[in-house]
Parts: sequence; structure tokens; C-alpha cells
Amino acid sequence: MELNKTIQNFKEQQKKMHAFDHVMNLLTYDAATGMPPGASDTLSDTLAVMSGESYRLTVSEEYKAMLKVLNEHKEELDFQTRREAEELLEEQEKLAKVPEEEVVAAAKAQNEANHYWEIAKNKNDYELFKPYLAKLIEIQKRYAGYINPDGDVYDTLLNEFEKGMTQKQMDPFFDDIKEKLVPLIAAVQKSSDKPDTSFLSGTFPIEKQKELSAYVMDLMGIDKERCILRETEHPFTTEFSKNDVRITTKYKEDDLTSNLYSVIHESGHAMYELCVSDDLLHSALGHGATTAIHESQSRLWENYIGRSKAFCQLIFPKVKELFPEQMEGVIAEDFYRAVNVARPSLIRTEADELTYSLHVLIRYEMEKKIFNEGLSVDDLPAEWNRLYKEYLGVDVPDDTQGILQDAHWAGGAFGYFPSYALGTAYSAQIMKYLKEVVDLEKCCFEGDFAPVREWLTDRIYKHGMLLTAEELIENTCHEKFDPNYYTKYLTDKFTRLYRL
Amino acid sequence: MELNKTIQNFKEQQKKMHAFDHVMNLLTYDAATGMPPGASDTLSDTLAVMSGESYRLTVSEEYKAMLKVLNEHKEELDFQTRREAEELLEEQEKLAKVPEEEVVAAAKAQNEANHYWEIAKNKNDYELFKPYLAKLIEIQKRYAGYINPDGDVYDTLLNEFEKGMTQKQMDPFFDDIKEKLVPLIAAVQKSSDKPDTSFLSGTFPIEKQKELSAYVMDLMGIDKERCILRETEHPFTTEFSKNDVRITTKYKEDDLTSNLYSVIHESGHAMYELCVSDDLLHSALGHGATTAIHESQSRLWENYIGRSKAFCQLIFPKVKELFPEQMEGVIAEDFYRAVNVARPSLIRTEADELTYSLHVLIRYEMEKKIFNEGLSVDDLPAEWNRLYKEYLGVDVPDDTQGILQDAHWAGGAFGYFPSYALGTAYSAQIMKYLKEVVDLEKCCFEGDFAPVREWLTDRIYKHGMLLTAEELIENTCHEKFDPNYYTKYLTDKFTRLYRL
Repeated sequence: MELNKTIQNFKEQQKKMHAFDHVMNLLTYDAATGMPPGASDTLSDTLAVMSGESYRLTVSEEYKAMLKVLNEHKEELDFQTRREAEELLEEQEKLAKVPEEEVVAAAKAQNEANHYWEIAKNKNDYELFKPYLAKLIEIQKRYAGYINPDGDVYDTLLNEFEKGMTQKQMDPFFDDIKEKLVPLIAAVQKSSDKPDTSFLSGTFPIEKQKELSAYVMDLMGIDKERCILRETEHPFTTEFSKNDVRITTKYKEDDLTSNLYSVIHESGHAMYELCVSDDLLHSALGHGATTAIHESQSRLWENYIGRSKAFCQLIFPKVKELFPEQMEGVIAEDFYRAVNVARPSLIRTEADELTYSLHVLIRYEMEKKIFNEGLSVDDLPAEWNRLYKEYLGVDVPDDTQGILQDAHWAGGAFGYFPSYALGTAYSAQIMKYLKEVVDLEKCCFEGDFAPVREWLTDRIYKHGMLLTAEELIENTCHEKFDPNYYTKYLTDKFTRLYRL
Repeated sequence: MELNKTIQNFKEQQKKMHAFDHVMNLLTYDAATGMPPGASDTLSDTLAVMSGESYRLTVSEEYKAMLKVLNEHKEELDFQTRREAEELLEEQEKLAKVPEEEVVAAAKAQNEANHYWEIAKNKNDYELFKPYLAKLIEIQKRYAGYINPDGDVYDTLLNEFEKGMTQKQMDPFFDDIKEKLVPLIAAVQKSSDKPDTSFLSGTFPIEKQKELSAYVMDLMGIDKERCILRETEHPFTTEFSKNDVRITTKYKEDDLTSNLYSVIHESGHAMYELCVSDDLLHSALGHGATTAIHESQSRLWENYIGRSKAFCQLIFPKVKELFPEQMEGVIAEDFYRAVNVARPSLIRTEADELTYSLHVLIRYEMEKKIFNEGLSVDDLPAEWNRLYKEYLGVDVPDDTQGILQDAHWAGGAFGYFPSYALGTAYSAQIMKYLKEVVDLEKCCFEGDFAPVREWLTDRIYKHGMLLTAEELIENTCHEKFDPNYYTKYLTDKFTRLYRL
């Protein structure tokens, strides 16, 4: 067959695979946003069929032959096609190692576990969720064994989210965070100059919060023709293509900032997908590069921009307009200090910028114990509670606010959490370089973030998965990843905020 | 291969086909309920892939062989499996006649047309929609040619919705309706005893209307664990399985009954699907029998029960509780007369019970002209407006309220409309026999419709597609379909209502 014909078939194959991803993501999104509760078996059956069909597509002889030919003719391919062929060959070789029935069983088990996790979380009943969690852990162990029979199980799982990542690299990274942030947190806790946060609790009508969500999405420049906001128990972003991005939030009537910063966070994820190059539409590389790079973008918007003084000054008039009674006598500076309060707490997704990484550290240590030391599902809640006491000094009152708080494990995602801390550290380094070129104060003053979007699009967004995480950091910062920017940024910011 | 193994594979095949139906229905439902507008190309591409994959499944050699074996061993199969094999063989033989690229092109064209129809309807711009409509008509003509090369095109299309139906049978049915209802409508129009409907317009806050929707769904006994209500431009019902039924409505702040009766109508469709036998879960026969039988159930709940005096007496206290100012001085009898007002109007979905069938007649005559006489898309709006003037005496002010009002043609459904009138006539006959067994007055008095649901489940709902429309009518009424019940029911009801 002619090479051109093979390339054409290869592009068609990617479109097909994209379509299966689209429907599987839509099924999951639908389950979170509006499915009747009694429908979970039907969902589960359909997901099983779709993942089976998608799997068959990926291990077909025709497709294998296609990838072989393309990888033999690498030099003759354009850059995008070559990267697609390399990436998909690697993925194909990996998938071919996992028996089809295992893939189908995993999809079904994840869907079941997710269903029971929701019920268990609502009822504060870990026992209900436990057998499904145990099943997922066994599936993950088997999966790692198929993929990398001689490798370390947890390293293999880390690799699923951040290619090349090992515990050997992660351990010193987290040690460093622990070493520098724990004393800083202690100092902050002892500070006598704590911000007043009383005006952030009270009653904030949900209709008004919805207006605020729409306002910040507009400010950030989220294209509403291609992105919509819905409500779910656990906020997330999913994309069916760069022209169809869905973000979700959770409104709490007694809490203003939970939804506000959640929407900014998810909009950061959304913006990345919305700005991937048109050339990558329906390509296998038409998504954000890695979970940590993705998280670097959500955190960059949420914390580095969204919790900056200039941004708080920009949005505070709108906050005051929507909630005049609650904000009576409050000025922008008070708002800035309040949304940056650092206080050890229970819930990761609502943790402040300073203590956030310790929540991740706890999950990292738990996962290491599960996969390296065989920690039993029976003992997870106690271990969770012990670590929260040790690192954050907080008592976990119930499993709903403890081990049941995150959706990740229920979705079979082990090794995912560390990328949150890594991503946050990436963004500190990226911001350093962004600020050298873009006048962020001016953007906030004018309420126009086009310069930020354009710089990030050019350096990161548009490339999708064409470049690796490492290449993207070097492309953006002209140096290798350096976690020191992160601890330095936090030290500077919180020393100033708390007048230490 | 052993017959048992073939049966097992056959059931697996049906599950797979069900999964593809599920995702295609979900994509369409999602497009109507929450998709960002810019995502239509992605939707269209994914639908094309899914319909292509589903098609391939249906024409595969393996599946053909399965159906052949099963149909050769009919006598050895249980009733359900035999019916599945017969039905799917017939469908398979039909599908095999249509080239795959035609199926894919049709799915894509329907999705495009639907997208532009929505815009065109909003902008009152028929010209925008026209080329897409023309394309769909050509696709339908080609489709009918593939299916039934020697048959009449429009008869072939009618058959898609009501098996065995021909213009030869439909013409006298519509002639009868025209003959009996036109003089009745004229008499009603001349009556000096017209109901006061002033209290049905005004301002009805949407939050309150939502409460009313939930109230009537509960009254009817719709299982909310398996059925949810959303909002769309054009209300509809879709089901992904008997455990996942979705209905939609449209709230208008200035109109109370539009949403109220729309919800009852769609809940009637939903109830049918919710009550199909568990044995038929994920079977190819696990749905309502035909579109006309389906419509008989939505109309039965909407008009024959929902617009009865006893039902109005049941719900009026709730209406009064939700809208005390608007209903001041109004009594249940006034409400009953008002929701039964007969008045020639522009919009089919909001037409009253008496004039409804004439809206359908107009579409039937239009479709006959399109397919039998080659009426051009250029001339459709004028012909539409002419017929509305002739049969209903109304002037169509714009295409939004004229030819662009329905979603059906934009979805490629030609030959669908006649089943609305036929279904309504079915329900008159069914109600006659239901009332002989079930004390409907008592159900309304007690607000408990379990006896109605149970009787209908036993006679119709539980059978899904195991029985044909003809068999269901005979099963329920112990006689053949007789349209006289319909015209008699309307004559009795409206003679009494308008004191003619």
C-alpha cells in the first residue's frame, strides 16, 4: 500500500478512536450530570460494550500493520503524523499486553465503584464502598503486572499519568515540600495577623453565584460557544473535542469561594483544551499533554492569577454588587487576604494554596502503602485519619470528609494525585517566565486576559500532546523543571500575607 | 454450532446493538439538552462513526448466519427469541439493501439539518434551512428506492413508522376525520357558550411550573429513579433502556397549560417504556411497539385522562395553591372548560384535542405532495400557509410558527406525522375498554392511577414489540381497530362542553 494511503487510513482510524472516546466520556459526564439513579446498570453495560469495541479497534491487525508501516517510514512523515504514530504505537504495544476481558471488566468495575462511592459518600458508609474499592485495587495490580511484569507496580501506575515519573524522583520532591512548607504553615498558624474571613460565610443565593461563575468565565475569555458549565457533586472538566468542553461546579449556599475558585480552576483546564491547535482536531494528540501539565494550567488560573491581589481587585466590585449585604464594609484588600487564608483543613479540593500539597502528600503515601506494603482496604480509613492528624493536625470526623471525599480512586485512578502537586509546582515556574513578558497587573486592571491566553497558547496550549511535559517546560522556561520556584513563591507570598 | 450457543450469541449481539442505540440516542439527547452550540461538527462526526459501526454490526456475516440458523429453527425457540429473530431478520434484510455510505451520510445530514433548523426557527429564516431539508428529502427518496425499488415511495416511508400502513388505508381514515370534525369545529366556533380562558395566560413563574411538573409526574406514578425531566426547545421522550427514560418540556412564563399538558403527554410515552417487561431489557424488542401505539399512550394520558373533568378536579387544588392570584375566583369546572377550549390555531403541539388531527392532516397532505407530486422545497411555505387557511381558517404570520415549527422533518422523519392521528384514534378505542374495567373517576378522586397503569401494562406496556400494533389492539379491545370511537368521543365531549 502506498504510504499516503496508509496515512489517510491512520487519520481515519484516529477519528474513529476519537468517536469512541467521545461517547465514553459523554456517558460518564451524563452519569454525573443528569442520569436517573436507576440507570447505572444500563450505563455499565453500554460502557462495557463501547470499551470492548474501542479496545478491538486498537488491537486490530489492520491497525497494527498501519502503525508498523508508519514507524518504519518515520523520516518521511510530517512532525504531527510522526508523533501520532510514535505515541499510538507505544500505547498499542501497551494495550496489547492487557487481555480484552480485563479491559471490559475494569470499565464495568469502575462504573460500579463510582456508583457506590456516591451513595457511600452521601451516607458516610465506607463499608458499602469497600468491596468495590478492593476490586479496583486488585484490577490495578493486575493491570500493572500486564503492562510491566518486572517493574514496580506503583511506578507503573504513576507512569500512566506522568510519563517517566518514578517514586525515586517523587520522593525527594515531596520531601522538599514537607521540609519547607511544614515550618511555614506552623509560622502562619502562630501569626497574630490572621485575615478576617467571616464575610465569606453566610448565605450566598445560588442564582447570584451562577452570575458570578458566568462573570469570571467571561473575564478569563472562555468561549461559551464551545464550553458549558453544569453542576455535579465533584467538579471536573471533560472534553469531547476542542469544540466541546464541559466543566462542572458545585454550589454551596453558605460558601462563596468554593464555587468561585472551582470555576476558575476548571476554566483553566477548559482553556487549555479550547486553545489546542485546530490541526489536532480529532487527532490522538489533540488534548492536554499530561495530567500534571493540565493541572499546572488550572492551578495557574486558580491560584497564581485568581488569588493574586490584582485579580481580587478586579473582581471584587462584581462580588460586592452581587452580595452587597454580605460585603458591607469589606474592601478589596480584605477580600484578597480572606481568599488566601491558610488553614489546615479536611477537604483537598477546598484546601488553601499553602496546605494543598500536604493533602496530596497524604494520598501519595497512602497509595505507596497500598501498592508497596499491601495496606488492606480495611485499614485505609484509620491510616487516612492518622496521616491527616500527623501532617495537618486535623481530626477527621467522618469518612465522608475523609477517605470518601475524592472521586479518583472510585474511578480506578491510582497514581493520579501526585500529578496535582507536580502540576502546581510547574505553574510556579511557568508564571515566573510569563510575568517577564506579560504585564499581569495591567491585564487585571483592564480585565483583559488575552495577552496571558496568547502567551500560554503559543508556549503550551496549541501543542496538545505534540510535545512532552519536559519539552513544554523547556519550551516555556528555557530550563529544566525546578521545584524551587514553587516553595519560594509560597514562602514569599505567605510571609508577606501574614506579615511574618 | 449448537442452537443454544447461537441463541446466546444472538442475545449478546442484541446487547451490543442496544449499546450503540444507547450512545446514539444519548448524543442526540445531549445535543438538545446541553451541548455547546459550537460542538455540532464533533457531534456530527461521532454520530457518523457510531452509525457506521452499528451498521457494520447489523450486516456482518456472523450476524447474518446467526439469524439464518435461528429462523430455520423457529419451532425450537421460545416465543420471545422467535419474535426477536423474525423481527431482526426482516430489519437486517432491509438494512442490507442500503449502502453503508448512504447510512452514514443520512446520519450526518440529519444532524446538520437539525442544527440549522434550530437556528432557522429562531431567526424565522426558512431559506437557511431549505437546502438541508432538500437534501433530506432526496436522501429519503433514495432510501425508499433501496428498501422497496418497485413500491410507492411515500407508502414505504409510512411503513417505517407503522408497519403495513398505506395511503390506501390512510386516505379514508383522514377523509372520515375531515368529514366529521370540520362541521363539529364550525359548530363549536359558532357556539355562544365559549369557555373563559383568560386565567390561563398571565405570568406563571417557572419555578412554580417546575413544581407542577413534578406533582403530575408523581401523580401518574412515574418512577423518578428511572426517569428524569429536562428542558428543550421541542419536548420529547427518549429512552436508553427501561431503566433510563428521559423526558423534556418547554416552560413558557406566560402560559400555564403548555408545559402542564406537555409533561403529561411525555410522561405517557415514558410510562410505556418504564413498564416494558424486565425480560425484554436490552432486547431488540424492548421498546414500544410502533409510533402510533406509542402516541396512543401519550394522548391517552394527555387528553383522555388529563383533560377529563375528574382529573381537572384532582389537580386544580394544586394549581390554585401554586398560582393563587392567577386562579382567584376560578373553580375546577372553569379550569376544566378552559383547558378544553377548541380554537383553530397555528402550532400543532399546542393544538387542542378537537383541532389536533387537522394539523396532522395538513402535514400528511404536504408529504403526499412532496413525494408523489414532487412539490419543491421552494414552494413548501406557501403550500403550508394555504392549507392552514383552508382547513383551519388561520393566517400563518411567519415560518417560525408555520413550516419551521416541527423538529420531525429536520430529523429526516417523513411519514411520521400520520401516526399521531392514528395513535389518537387508537386511544379512543382503548379508553372505551379500559373504562369498562377500571373506575377512572375513583382513580382521579383518590389520586391513585395504579389500576390504570396495571391494566395498560398488562394489555400493552409489558409486551414491548413482542406483539404488533394490530395484535395489541385486539389483545386490548377484542376487536379490530375502529376509528369511529375517536370521532364519536370527540363529538360527545365537545357537544357537551359547548352545550351544542
